[in-house]
Amino acid sequence: MLITDKKLLKLVEKETKKLDYGMTPKELYQPIKYIMSLGGKRLRPLLTIMSYSLFKDDVESIIKQALAVEVFHNFTLMHDDIMDEAPLRRGKQTVHEKWNNNTAILSGDVMMVKAYEMLMQPHDCDSEIFTKFSKCATEVCEGQQLDMVFENRKTVAVDEYINMIRLKTAVLLGFSLELGGILAQTTDKNKRALKAFGENIGIGFQLKDDLLDVYADQSKFGKQVGGDIISNKKTFLLITALNTAKGKQKTALNDWLNKKDFNPEDKVKAITNIYDELGIKALAEQKMNEYFEKGFSALKKVDAPYIRRGKLRSFADQLINREK
Amino acid sequence: MLITDKKLLKLVEKETKKLDYGMTPKELYQPIKYIMSLGGKRLRPLLTIMSYSLFKDDVESIIKQALAVEVFHNFTLMHDDIMDEAPLRRGKQTVHEKWNNNTAILSGDVMMVKAYEMLMQPHDCDSEIFTKFSKCATEVCEGQQLDMVFENRKTVAVDEYINMIRLKTAVLLGFSLELGGILAQTTDKNKRALKAFGENIGIGFQLKDDLLDVYADQSKFGKQVGGDIISNKKTFLLITALNTAKGKQKTALNDWLNKKDFNPEDKVKAITNIYDELGIKALAEQKMNEYFEKGFSALKKVDAPYIRRGKLRSFADQLINREK
Repeated sequence: MLITDKKLLKLVEKETKKLDYGMTPKELYQPIKYIMSLGGKRLRPLLTIMSYSLFKDDVESIIKQALAVEVFHNFTLMHDDIMDEAPLRRGKQTVHEKWNNNTAILSGDVMMVKAYEMLMQPHDCDSEIFTKFSKCATEVCEGQQLDMVFENRKTVAVDEYINMIRLKTAVLLGFSLELGGILAQTTDKNKRALKAFGENIGIGFQLKDDLLDVYADQSKFGKQVGGDIISNKKTFLLITALNTAKGKQKTALNDWLNKKDFNPEDKVKAITNIYDELGIKALAEQKMNEYFEKGFSALKKVDAPYIRRGKLRSFADQLINREK
Repeated sequence: MLITDKKLLKLVEKETKKLDYGMTPKELYQPIKYIMSLGGKRLRPLLTIMSYSLFKDDVESIIKQALAVEVFHNFTLMHDDIMDEAPLRRGKQTVHEKWNNNTAILSGDVMMVKAYEMLMQPHDCDSEIFTKFSKCATEVCEGQQLDMVFENRKTVAVDEYINMIRLKTAVLLGFSLELGGILAQTTDKNKRALKAFGENIGIGFQLKDDLLDVYADQSKFGKQVGGDIISNKKTFLLITALNTAKGKQKTALNDWLNKKDFNPEDKVKAITNIYDELGIKALAEQKMNEYFEKGFSALKKVDAPYIRRGKLRSFADQLINREK
């Protein structure tokens, strides 16, 4: 029997609360409980479970492995937040703010070990899962490093940017989906297709994020529209603008990027204007849709009942059409 | 054929140089090459290889797993150095000094993944190694957290301190030795004995470090004698002094610990005097020898040719009798 997304999310939340990472020293384990309790979409474990559900029904049997991916994801968030000096995560204090950097480093380290442990069956170490997860974990670190490198570079090519977001965020979505397939012992062809589906929609989701930052409806967005513009974040939009602007537009764009004193609203307005003049929105949407299409065409290749595939597709559709 | 320690160390160094962690982004992988090139005693891989050699001769076949432990150890050093704000490691700049904190966090993260990958055979995932290594990695993090917690506590019991150094440093020596046994497919009894040998001599080594800081011969020591005293580091000596001093001695000790402005030489001299009056050196040596004896009696229980066990024993003896 297929269960609904809402029921699934409830199950994931319930099982997340039950997780036992360790007790002492409490200074090491409390931050893990804390970050794991902050909620979020729980996208990755949901994808693993839905992917598994394409082939099998006993989703309870793989919950722990599905949650391993969430633990790993939250480890990366804990460390990324230190690196980005982010004060807030999901509207709450980040771990390094609530405790300190050292605690966030060390609790993050132990989370990675926990993720590995949860991913492996207690009495059986699956080589395929181990190898693919390790590769994915390495790539996520590579992506985060590239992101930092690009922030200090004058120009970044679009392909480099796409590769960076693929590593930093998309490969983990690909792995989450592939994991469901591995756990369900499906064919290699299906596993490859699930991975491709995840990676491509993952890239699409990030491009969607880049677009929403500038073009979201403020009344629905939840965060400040234009946050990336204010902080000069090298999104697909800014990179494309830097690569295509010429003459007066290029000068104006660079002036805004170099300005130290400015009214944030003015900057958001001015740079959005430049984006509009250059047709950046259409270019970003085109790129985004390209990846969504690639993703969905990969999903179509998965040999599973049409109705089950449809569930995964409509789950992705919700994310594609989100306004925040 | 048994190979000598020196030949073994040469082999380990040669194989360490050949390790390929990854190429791009270079900002992620260069710091790994760097820290792994700083040398050191390579104690952990040597212990793994010597432990394996108790039972089997083809040490080349397990070099990669032995080096995995060294990679893991250097990951902990990279992160610990950030937390301790240490400027130097083996006389060279630490990674966070040479690059920056973010690089040290992220390169450390990827080193942990590499350690896991190196530990597992490419086509076979050994559950026993995986489970025991994961437990050990968790314990090392717990030990580091306890160390930080204790630095901010007024009093620490001797048992708490011993437990902390067991977790922070000894369990990894225990695992290194046990790993050799697992790879050689020896009996569970032998593996347990090897682990006990490593953990107990590991605690002894740390107590030796604590003693050397105060009682080493400055001309042979390499570092400044009294460094731990100057920084109020909670070593076995200070903890024992705090727990046994009374009256005037207690007041004098606390005065020195609270002093912000002081001549380092005066402080080292004064606190060493208090240690001497309290007989701390003898107490520390007694405790240290207790652990060495426990360790060697565990080693005796390993069912392996006498001459091979002797090699491991004499290697440990060298470390016990070191003067720096």
